[in-house]
Amino acid sequence: MKPKVESFENLVEALEALPSIGKKSARRMAYHMVMEDHFAAMKIAHAIERAVERVGRCERCGAMSEDELCPVCADETRDQSLLCLVEHPADIQQIESSGEYTGTYFVVGSAQGLDEGRLIERVEEGVEEIIFAFPPSIASDGLILYIEEKLKGYDLVFTKIAQGVPTGVSLENVDMLSLSRALQERVKV
Amino acid sequence: MKPKVESFENLVEALEALPSIGKKSARRMAYHMVMEDHFAAMKIAHAIERAVERVGRCERCGAMSEDELCPVCADETRDQSLLCLVEHPADIQQIESSGEYTGTYFVVGSAQGLDEGRLIERVEEGVEEIIFAFPPSIASDGLILYIEEKLKGYDLVFTKIAQGVPTGVSLENVDMLSLSRALQERVKV
Repeated sequence: MKPKVESFENLVEALEALPSIGKKSARRMAYHMVMEDHFAAMKIAHAIERAVERVGRCERCGAMSEDELCPVCADETRDQSLLCLVEHPADIQQIESSGEYTGTYFVVGSAQGLDEGRLIERVEEGVEEIIFAFPPSIASDGLILYIEEKLKGYDLVFTKIAQGVPTGVSLENVDMLSLSRALQERVKV
Repeated sequence: MKPKVESFENLVEALEALPSIGKKSARRMAYHMVMEDHFAAMKIAHAIERAVERVGRCERCGAMSEDELCPVCADETRDQSLLCLVEHPADIQQIESSGEYTGTYFVVGSAQGLDEGRLIERVEEGVEEIIFAFPPSIASDGLILYIEEKLKGYDLVFTKIAQGVPTGVSLENVDMLSLSRALQERVKV
């Protein structure tokens, strides 16, 4: 017979639903929270509730934001002629960390998730260069072609971040040097 | 400039306080909860609050428990003459999972944390054998000697769990101490 401590087992199960958290990690995390550090535990619980309540998406670019406009879109000193297209909101934070980029962003999602109307609206606000910052893959190349096609009526330069970003690796796992190099050496598509 | 989404960053920071959770894992977990699965997120928050509120320790053995007595202590069919001493409450669940043990437990903590009065109370309830289930180490050996000394006035058999080569691990991956112990304590086939 295994001693069942129901609320503990429920916590383990809830944590296991997170990506890349296995049974052992979930158990270790739950044990720490319940038996060793109630303060840390309650801090996490409240931080989750608060973040879920407050964090949404920037109306203009789709970035993660607590306000209608994210800090980048709200910052009028950013270069409005540069529009960097990313797959996920998390990629924006990664690129900002490189300190290399002074333009604006637009979260694409996928070909299916792309809000064309909103992208065109952004382009018409004076964009001169579209920078594709997708991790290199066949699917990304397809998405690039698809978007170029949609925007062919506009006078735009299309570039993509330079290879140097290893194939098949998501942006969050790329080191800062490679990422800033890839931005500096972006190439015409 | 890194776009600060304060409540998100606070959640990442709170998660990083957990053992064996690094910056990247914390960020991935937070992102999943906040941007991809609010339901899973709120389930975790509520599970934490509930577990922190309900889970305490068994009055008798120190195991994790929602009630005054844990399921093992509340079970009168368990062999009360066997008392297994463990370092952490989590060790009890591990031993119970093996399905091998029918006796009772006592959580020792460390020499500093040991509640001697409560241990002696338990021993006087009819314990005949003390089983030390500590991970093999010099510190554990010291703790065993210390406890034996404290209980020398009682008619007890002292044993400890066998040391050796774990199942399913090739010999080249077994540490030298375990291997030499396994050779010393070899058994007839």
